[in-house]
Amino acid sequence: MLTATWSISSGWSAPSIVPYGPLAIQPAASCLQYATECFEGLKCYRGHDGRLRLFRPQVNAARFLKSATRIALPSFPPDEFLKLLVKFVAHEAPKWLPNNPDWRGRFLYLRPTMIGTSIKIGLQRPDEAMMFIVAVFVPADVNGPGNSASNPNSSPAPTAGPSTPPEVPSATSPPTRMKLLASKQDMIRAWPGGFGSSKVGANYGPTIVAQSEARRRGYDQVLWLFGPEDYVTEAGLANFFMLWTTKDGIKELVTPPLELGVILEGVTRRSVLEVCRSGKVGDVVVSERKAKMDEIVSAYEEGRMLEAFAVGTAVFVASVSEIDFRGKKLILPLDRGDSGGFATAVKGYLEGIMFGRFGHKWAHLVEEV
Amino acid sequence: MLTATWSISSGWSAPSIVPYGPLAIQPAASCLQYATECFEGLKCYRGHDGRLRLFRPQVNAARFLKSATRIALPSFPPDEFLKLLVKFVAHEAPKWLPNNPDWRGRFLYLRPTMIGTSIKIGLQRPDEAMMFIVAVFVPADVNGPGNSASNPNSSPAPTAGPSTPPEVPSATSPPTRMKLLASKQDMIRAWPGGFGSSKVGANYGPTIVAQSEARRRGYDQVLWLFGPEDYVTEAGLANFFMLWTTKDGIKELVTPPLELGVILEGVTRRSVLEVCRSGKVGDVVVSERKAKMDEIVSAYEEGRMLEAFAVGTAVFVASVSEIDFRGKKLILPLDRGDSGGFATAVKGYLEGIMFGRFGHKWAHLVEEV
Repeated sequence: MLTATWSISSGWSAPSIVPYGPLAIQPAASCLQYATECFEGLKCYRGHDGRLRLFRPQVNAARFLKSATRIALPSFPPDEFLKLLVKFVAHEAPKWLPNNPDWRGRFLYLRPTMIGTSIKIGLQRPDEAMMFIVAVFVPADVNGPGNSASNPNSSPAPTAGPSTPPEVPSATSPPTRMKLLASKQDMIRAWPGGFGSSKVGANYGPTIVAQSEARRRGYDQVLWLFGPEDYVTEAGLANFFMLWTTKDGIKELVTPPLELGVILEGVTRRSVLEVCRSGKVGDVVVSERKAKMDEIVSAYEEGRMLEAFAVGTAVFVASVSEIDFRGKKLILPLDRGDSGGFATAVKGYLEGIMFGRFGHKWAHLVEEV
Repeated sequence: MLTATWSISSGWSAPSIVPYGPLAIQPAASCLQYATECFEGLKCYRGHDGRLRLFRPQVNAARFLKSATRIALPSFPPDEFLKLLVKFVAHEAPKWLPNNPDWRGRFLYLRPTMIGTSIKIGLQRPDEAMMFIVAVFVPADVNGPGNSASNPNSSPAPTAGPSTPPEVPSATSPPTRMKLLASKQDMIRAWPGGFGSSKVGANYGPTIVAQSEARRRGYDQVLWLFGPEDYVTEAGLANFFMLWTTKDGIKELVTPPLELGVILEGVTRRSVLEVCRSGKVGDVVVSERKAKMDEIVSAYEEGRMLEAFAVGTAVFVASVSEIDFRGKKLILPLDRGDSGGFATAVKGYLEGIMFGRFGHKWAHLVEEV
């Protein structure tokens, strides 16, 4: 893992790559008491051409700074963050994703994290902090890449790579399927003026109770709604997209907007919006706008609902097959024989960039050491 | 410190008291990534009669369970929690608060904490956890007991007690003074359906940015408002009380209600309400109800505002001398020569219980070993 420490008096220490192992943290440390912690999630891809790539890591670097600022942690300059990330990947990825055909189309998950480590028991801005990056190797899954969300048992990579490659999935496999249970009014993920748009730990732990309830009832994730209007916001830990035909016969791709601050600015979300607006994956009107559950129900009942899918770095692109909205079950076309073709096309296009099937400015090549 | 570990397969380990020191925590631990952490705060008092006391620790034990449940951590049985707390205090407090006249009227702050320690990188209910209790010795302060909030530099107690007692304040000193800066609409502490009523780390870190801004502007804490109506909710990390004369000439003590779930159920808050309802500190009508900033402004402008104060275990009872509400400065009677007599009376009565000036069921005696 890569680590660097910070103090208010001396700034950031020189980062170093050290063997993965436990951190020595004081019981009264700010991160354990007051959740002064934030993280990023991104992947390193072993391309079909044998090259290692990151996907838009500059966006993660900028978001890491934004999250740290929101949770009163020190700034880590995005340029420096990117350099360290590349250095870490160049050092670590070849062990986990050897450059041979068995490993092409596979990825390593990266988790940069910052925590407040000062031990003043009174709540205040931490005057000591630590930044670290760990790698998580996700075993192969028949659902293909981008499926770490369905592998919650993945532990961080120990110090040596795996000896035999797990089954290598096709990079063009269809998206994972996901069943969603809509949240009730008594459990809300984020609120305007809160911190739902920052990747801080405080957004995650409090959602586990609702997620556990969804899983107990046979659903994969919670579809988070907001307000008495039941606006859709996020699907579990991912951004949510709906594809439907409007009453006027227009094919519209809708995702909730960022302006209320209750939605994470996902890198995959942004990329899906940009790809779809460019017309590269089909002819749809792209709308970032508020959408109520009522609109989904109407589209469903009137046969206008085409697809719904969730996107995020961990889950990548997951097709939604069913939504339970307070007892009303919407069985989406995917579960009625439809191919989920739009989500598959989006996934295929982005994978093309990630795994180097074609050149694209979003791919950030990493030279191996 | 006292520590106990938990795993889903074997439950809680036998707790043990060990020297204070850092914990070995995995970088991918749930508490560092997803803020699966909660805590309690309470004090152990060296009474004027030489006895050690806790104040309503059963309430902390019950709240600790509630907070752990909300953040998907395991249950720690309240009865067992109380036993451990008493055992820890009996072991630790005599070192810090020796039984001699110099230390009477002083306290030791206790911080029970629970953290999720499992290292599954996917978000899920932690299947490993740790509970620990540390003690924090708060140096004497001219403002008297209950003032650790103004001592943010206090670090957890090392392994030996102090050799010379700091200045011993009078237990009947007036309350600390506090200046509050009302929050803006773009920063809220908690929301209905969130977790603002649980003592989880996720409620604290996200408030530091606003708190820092308040301090930069010369205020001690944020007066947290909620909603377009600007309902008052909390004062910094403490519950908020207003005392005014109504337009009908009735002396009314008002504190915001718990039902929206945006206010922490403070032990001191509850105690102040019960004491004031019993009529023991003066003849006031006690109202748990929503109150808008507008009501405070009206009472202030019409000369009906008598006092405002914040209460909590750390700050104890702090009189509010000034509120800045978006540029409008309310200089409360305390800063115009008034004695803040009601807050002082409340503080005095509760201190009487804590330091054993009279017997009361809320005092929980601890036998020294």
